[in-house]
Amino acid sequence: MKKLIKDKQQFLNDMLEGIKIAHPELEVINDTVVVKKDKKTTGVALVSGGGSGHEPAHAGYVAQGMLDAAVCGEVFTSPTPDKILEAIKAVDNGEGVLLIVKNYAGDVMNFEMAQEMAEMEGINAAMVVVKDDVAVSDIEQRRGVAGTVFVHKFAGFLADKGLSLTEIQSKVEEILPTIKSIGMALTPPMVPTTGKYGFDIDENDIEIGIGIHGEKGLQRQQMEPIDQIVTRLGDTLLQEVNSKEILVMVNGMGGTPLSELTIATSYIKQYFDAHDITVKHWYVGDFMTSLDMQGFSITVIPYSEILLKALLAPTTSRYFNI
Amino acid sequence: MKKLIKDKQQFLNDMLEGIKIAHPELEVINDTVVVKKDKKTTGVALVSGGGSGHEPAHAGYVAQGMLDAAVCGEVFTSPTPDKILEAIKAVDNGEGVLLIVKNYAGDVMNFEMAQEMAEMEGINAAMVVVKDDVAVSDIEQRRGVAGTVFVHKFAGFLADKGLSLTEIQSKVEEILPTIKSIGMALTPPMVPTTGKYGFDIDENDIEIGIGIHGEKGLQRQQMEPIDQIVTRLGDTLLQEVNSKEILVMVNGMGGTPLSELTIATSYIKQYFDAHDITVKHWYVGDFMTSLDMQGFSITVIPYSEILLKALLAPTTSRYFNI
Repeated sequence: MKKLIKDKQQFLNDMLEGIKIAHPELEVINDTVVVKKDKKTTGVALVSGGGSGHEPAHAGYVAQGMLDAAVCGEVFTSPTPDKILEAIKAVDNGEGVLLIVKNYAGDVMNFEMAQEMAEMEGINAAMVVVKDDVAVSDIEQRRGVAGTVFVHKFAGFLADKGLSLTEIQSKVEEILPTIKSIGMALTPPMVPTTGKYGFDIDENDIEIGIGIHGEKGLQRQQMEPIDQIVTRLGDTLLQEVNSKEILVMVNGMGGTPLSELTIATSYIKQYFDAHDITVKHWYVGDFMTSLDMQGFSITVIPYSEILLKALLAPTTSRYFNI
Repeated sequence: MKKLIKDKQQFLNDMLEGIKIAHPELEVINDTVVVKKDKKTTGVALVSGGGSGHEPAHAGYVAQGMLDAAVCGEVFTSPTPDKILEAIKAVDNGEGVLLIVKNYAGDVMNFEMAQEMAEMEGINAAMVVVKDDVAVSDIEQRRGVAGTVFVHKFAGFLADKGLSLTEIQSKVEEILPTIKSIGMALTPPMVPTTGKYGFDIDENDIEIGIGIHGEKGLQRQQMEPIDQIVTRLGDTLLQEVNSKEILVMVNGMGGTPLSELTIATSYIKQYFDAHDITVKHWYVGDFMTSLDMQGFSITVIPYSEILLKALLAPTTSRYFNI
């Protein structure tokens, strides 16, 4: 395993040390919870998190206009409820905390437990679960992937507008079922804690519909030119997208160079053009990765004036400054 | 070769199409030159460029506060003088144009020719050449690498302040010899136009002192933990750094996930701490890549108040917004 690490057991700790250096505006509580030094003192607080390996998610979105705290588990491993509770207590201003959770069994269970523990301590906590990965047919079982970052930004905008916890939860739950993502992989992630690849794949094969932990996709097939890959992903997405005006995120998986992501974007536009769908705004970059996996995902969300306004509102996150 | 491309001959064209989509604020002239739609109308204009494959360099730095134009050659291939001249003519406001060039024979030759052609057309053009890669012992032969991005930002600040071409050139040339970089690679880049790796390397080996086109480094050796790699790179850098206060860029090579880059950063800080060197500001991200190469580079520049002020001045580039 060739990785820029010292010791696989120290992956998370060393990364959190690095986050403090690269982000002097952030601090780390008890080696797990990333918060702003300059915490906001009013309004609903937003907490997200999960296993590490998806950087810049989620610590990179702890910023004005987005999250108040990120709870960082070990690689691909949910943080424990006590750590999540710490995050909740660190950022609650007495107006309640919204937990934004990706739909994985461990995350949902641990965030739910933390939510209950918070309620027992008199903190008003609510939870929304992102299930945007259309590669899973059962809607309730869908994984939370790159679309989660749209939720961070949308909820952050609503919190800054002074909406109540109930109002924010309700508005987020309105858009949640409309967020649709699908990913693909050229190569598997090398998981540092195990020293093993997330999955095995032949040299000339790719995986369509992959998850961000290397979970099985829709199909494995031979490598194809990017326009054909885009058509496969797009056709799956469009089965569930009714809007003719959308916003699109083209998300790199961690090992994908910006050049290829940009080339993919040109074919994604061609695809939507051919389907008479107008993309009102594009997000191209690494938003929700899977370690060093090569590949990308497309996330689509129907356009509305208020949503785009929310997504374009200022944030100090350098990873969503588009 | 598994890459998110349609046709290797269309790599640059397709990428430029994607740049226009991801960056509605930019436009592309004649399939080569990237400029701002909202061009500045006064002041010295800044032009950079070179072969493609180093994204976000250089088109990603065409932004307020940084470059006015980027001339994009084919992958790892210098753009021709006529294209560079087009860029110069597109952005000159009558106050002259500074060409910021990385020290490669083809780039230097073609930018020099374009400079002469511009002068013949009555445009005042000057050129600075970045030679920051300390892996090459002969100072005049040193390659231009990630430090070039600091030059884009510094010169952009000076241009916005209204300095003349001569003044900007002189101030840039003052700092040029103080910029020092060194890189390393875990894996070679896969060059799309040839379908071949930039170099061959054993599964357990790494290359210290690599260039951004896969050029030979100082040494090839067995993989080591990141703290030892950092010591090797740092010891080479410090032979030429006299300042006890510096600015540091930790640059990903394209295929390096942010998690590992962040871990590397924590050890780079430990290294400078141990040498009683204070890092006044950190830049961590992908600034100057080599296609999908895994690895990173460290760039060091002595701190000064004016330099840091210049680097922290606002820019609309999403890739230098740190």
